[in-house]
Amino acid sequence: MINVTLWFEDSSLGAAQMEVYPNGMHTVIAEFLAKNQDIRCRCFTMNGQPLTEQGLNETDVLIWYGHLHHRQVDDRLVDLCWKRVLEGMGLIAPHSAHFAKLFIKLMGTTCQLSYRVDSGCEREMLWVVNPAHPIAQGIGEGFIIPREEVYREFHDIPEPEELVFISSFPGGEVFRSGCCWRRGAGRIFYFRPGHETCPTWHHPQVQRVMINAVRWAAPTGTMAFEAGPRGRDDLRQSIDPKRQGVVGDSHPLCDVLYPKS
Amino acid sequence: MINVTLWFEDSSLGAAQMEVYPNGMHTVIAEFLAKNQDIRCRCFTMNGQPLTEQGLNETDVLIWYGHLHHRQVDDRLVDLCWKRVLEGMGLIAPHSAHFAKLFIKLMGTTCQLSYRVDSGCEREMLWVVNPAHPIAQGIGEGFIIPREEVYREFHDIPEPEELVFISSFPGGEVFRSGCCWRRGAGRIFYFRPGHETCPTWHHPQVQRVMINAVRWAAPTGTMAFEAGPRGRDDLRQSIDPKRQGVVGDSHPLCDVLYPKS
Amino acid sequence: MINVTLWFEDSSLGAAQMEVYPNGMHTVIAEFLAKNQDIRCRCFTMNGQPLTEQGLNETDVLIWYGHLHHRQVDDRLVDLCWKRVLEGMGLIAPHSAHFAKLFIKLMGTTCQLSYRVDSGCEREMLWVVNPAHPIAQGIGEGFIIPREEVYREFHDIPEPEELVFISSFPGGEVFRSGCCWRRGAGRIFYFRPGHETCPTWHHPQVQRVMINAVRWAAPTGTMAFEAGPRGRDDLRQSIDPKRQGVVGDSHPLCDVLYPKS
Amino acid sequence: MINVTLWFEDSSLGAAQMEVYPNGMHTVIAEFLAKNQDIRCRCFTMNGQPLTEQGLNETDVLIWYGHLHHRQVDDRLVDLCWKRVLEGMGLIAPHSAHFAKLFIKLMGTTCQLSYRVDSGCEREMLWVVNPAHPIAQGIGEGFIIPREEVYREFHDIPEPEELVFISSFPGGEVFRSGCCWRRGAGRIFYFRPGHETCPTWHHPQVQRVMINAVRWAAPTGTMAFEAGPRGRDDLRQSIDPKRQGVVGDSHPLCDVLYPKS
Repeated sequence: MINVTLWFEDSSLGAAQMEVYPNGMHTVIAEFLAKNQDIRCRCFTMNGQPLTEQGLNETDVLIWYGHLHHRQVDDRLVDLCWKRVLEGMGLIAPHSAHFAKLFIKLMGTTCQLSYRVDSGCEREMLWVVNPAHPIAQGIGEGFIIPREEVYREFHDIPEPEELVFISSFPGGEVFRSGCCWRRGAGRIFYFRPGHETCPTWHHPQVQRVMINAVRWAAPTGTMAFEAGPRGRDDLRQSIDPKRQGVVGDSHPLCDVLYPKS
Repeated sequence: MINVTLWFEDSSLGAAQMEVYPNGMHTVIAEFLAKNQDIRCRCFTMNGQPLTEQGLNETDVLIWYGHLHHRQVDDRLVDLCWKRVLEGMGLIAPHSAHFAKLFIKLMGTTCQLSYRVDSGCEREMLWVVNPAHPIAQGIGEGFIIPREEVYREFHDIPEPEELVFISSFPGGEVFRSGCCWRRGAGRIFYFRPGHETCPTWHHPQVQRVMINAVRWAAPTGTMAFEAGPRGRDDLRQSIDPKRQGVVGDSHPLCDVLYPKS
Repeated sequence: MINVTLWFEDSSLGAAQMEVYPNGMHTVIAEFLAKNQDIRCRCFTMNGQPLTEQGLNETDVLIWYGHLHHRQVDDRLVDLCWKRVLEGMGLIAPHSAHFAKLFIKLMGTTCQLSYRVDSGCEREMLWVVNPAHPIAQGIGEGFIIPREEVYREFHDIPEPEELVFISSFPGGEVFRSGCCWRRGAGRIFYFRPGHETCPTWHHPQVQRVMINAVRWAAPTGTMAFEAGPRGRDDLRQSIDPKRQGVVGDSHPLCDVLYPKS
Repeated sequence: MINVTLWFEDSSLGAAQMEVYPNGMHTVIAEFLAKNQDIRCRCFTMNGQPLTEQGLNETDVLIWYGHLHHRQVDDRLVDLCWKRVLEGMGLIAPHSAHFAKLFIKLMGTTCQLSYRVDSGCEREMLWVVNPAHPIAQGIGEGFIIPREEVYREFHDIPEPEELVFISSFPGGEVFRSGCCWRRGAGRIFYFRPGHETCPTWHHPQVQRVMINAVRWAAPTGTMAFEAGPRGRDDLRQSIDPKRQGVVGDSHPLCDVLYPKS
């Protein structure tokens, strides 16, 4: 079971957004995710019940969305989330979350980009440039979102470790729209679409990508490392098979060479 | 179920190897892998029943090992394996397979390295440098193999996309000993240990790494891309949801914006 | 001085190409490159004087172009070029050289892509996604080529180590159009534009990119590594400062700790 | 001319350090760098004259060293340096600068590592794993530092974009000791050695690496990108050759196809 936490700004639902997402974008996303038996969702919004350390500790994948109020986010919450990502919690940052404090803190760059002033209703084509990537499964060669806001390069991010999607827009703009990084033990996925006045989150293939991304970003294991001062025999002690929980082989040679006591 | 095919040279079992692996290394590896309910193994050796195209088509992950007879491998088999990796079959190349025709063809470099002339019984320490990687799960900070052959850098490979282990040896030598790449739709893992006269394959943590690597290298999906000439409407046709097998959302807005017929 | 060798197919100059490049594309490229005082050019064509091992040994950067006759290229020439790239010779592969034997051998993948059947005269926009990269200097945010052939993803190449340009086309297609890799000691740049019936090579910013790419791909030093059997003291011997040609420091502490004899 | 600024903690020169570096490590480093005609150095220490915004604006490459007093560094200085790196200033972070606020802010991870409690005088072997990299020129296969402090993996950094050196220590520890990243327009090099009580900075090959790193990290050009709102014709305007300062080709076809006015 993958525990997904959605943190959404959604405090300033304007008329345009209300029409498309009367209960907020997070509600739509939580709904289509939770239709999958291996995914469980909890939602938090900026002005609602706060997301606590305990809530984060119970989170496998965090979906963080913000747009107009990045600055108002409490730095302590940002620090807690940052620590949890490095410990292994997955992070999905859609659209304008490129400018969230948390995303900037993990990337180490300005995360600035250019966008179309008058946009909000232009066609986005997303092309798959890594067809075997888990996040691209079921997507084929790409898909079209009829109405989206336009972003364009240069987006000031570290070179993605895996680039999954590239978008184009009617003005000829391009954007690296599906980007993967690992930081510490955590996996991070940036996904470009998702403007709050466009019906993007109802798009079946956008939903497919998000479901894939949740499964991809879920922790694969615990972070075993302990930093700090170490003596010369520490590795020898740390590789004691009993401590590792590794079930030894019963081959007689193995017993001779790798005694278990 | 992951179908693993082991192709092992093992045609020249010398006395030293006979002592440690009387039935060949592949037998030991197939045995510990097949103890896992999600893994099924088939073995092929150089002078035994040939590995055919059909056998490859039924393979999810290929473990390819060779040492002294790389040159004698039939180029047609190499080409078939190469094509299958690019289509999505995983490949695990242990130890001296760094010099297999198949590995060189996928890497594009000489894959040359330096090794200790008089070695074969020196301590190898493997350190985890990517503790959250699926292949490092259950390994902790690293492990020690009491007796191994010594390899040392520079190993002429493309920069690994993910580096999981680094080894050190008593002479102070280091080696990038767990390296991951994606080529086409296939995942490739190079794993340094496994000399044929050392009891390495009985080591519980070496076995852990191999089980992890099989699961990591198993295909995550099919390769959807078709290369060649395309018209201007091809993406639009290729994203027809019915063709994609994507189950559409039932939201009324979605029906309006993304009509399904 | 950077010695550039151009190897161009150019054996089948059709009428359309003759009009734009009456003396072949290589002539135009060699001309604008050689206007730079640090660059010297030599041209070879498929049916002309053969490119020899000595010619390759005197080459710092090879620009290899082919289109219809990749298959006819002598495998021995491909092997020689491959070896030289790994030794440090730079390689620039424009446009349809994505399918050259040499490029495929270095990449390890099929290098297949999709293209527009009826194209040859559509607008290509190239966007800079790595503005500080040496190859992007003087380019600004990107540039437009009024008439080019259309390529589209998925291009089956290893994930670029550095992605410099992304192109878009009027049908909404995208393509990773400036890709960098290191293989062995050699640097490789794939550059998408350059169709033989389009006047692309006369475009000032295409020329700027090629001049930048030649300088970027030029060897930064010699490849010092020697593979093969080594004894335990080999590093100690190999770091003898006299052999390294490193001028030692004259600080007294240094003499004590790092004696030079 | 490359303008190098050294910012060194060096406020707490203990007896052990005084013996090896009576005038501080920065003095030794500035001296050997400034012997090169293309390098000019200025030094700043924590308690001396402050490093100002103007000083940073005149800096091509910043060498930042700290150890015991990372916390005391003014956040405004960190922010200024961070901004300058993203604009193109190179950064070299030696040894314990792995834990500097500036380095952590650029990496986005904890940058924690393990070290040997009782160390400070153990042999470090540095192996070259990228022999053609500009930073490895003149180094050969690697080199030995007779006395250094021991660091060991896991070091919690983003996967290096280019890994140049790997170190081993007498206890068998390994460490990724020469790591390259690009962030924004800036290049960053982490170099492991340099403990303040070891005579490392007098070592001729350590000096060679630092000289190479300064040249590698120096800006290759200006960052052209402007983020923010853009109209649909912005790229067309931004590629006006006159604005780009690109000298056009005089070929008649070019004039037709790419009119300059």
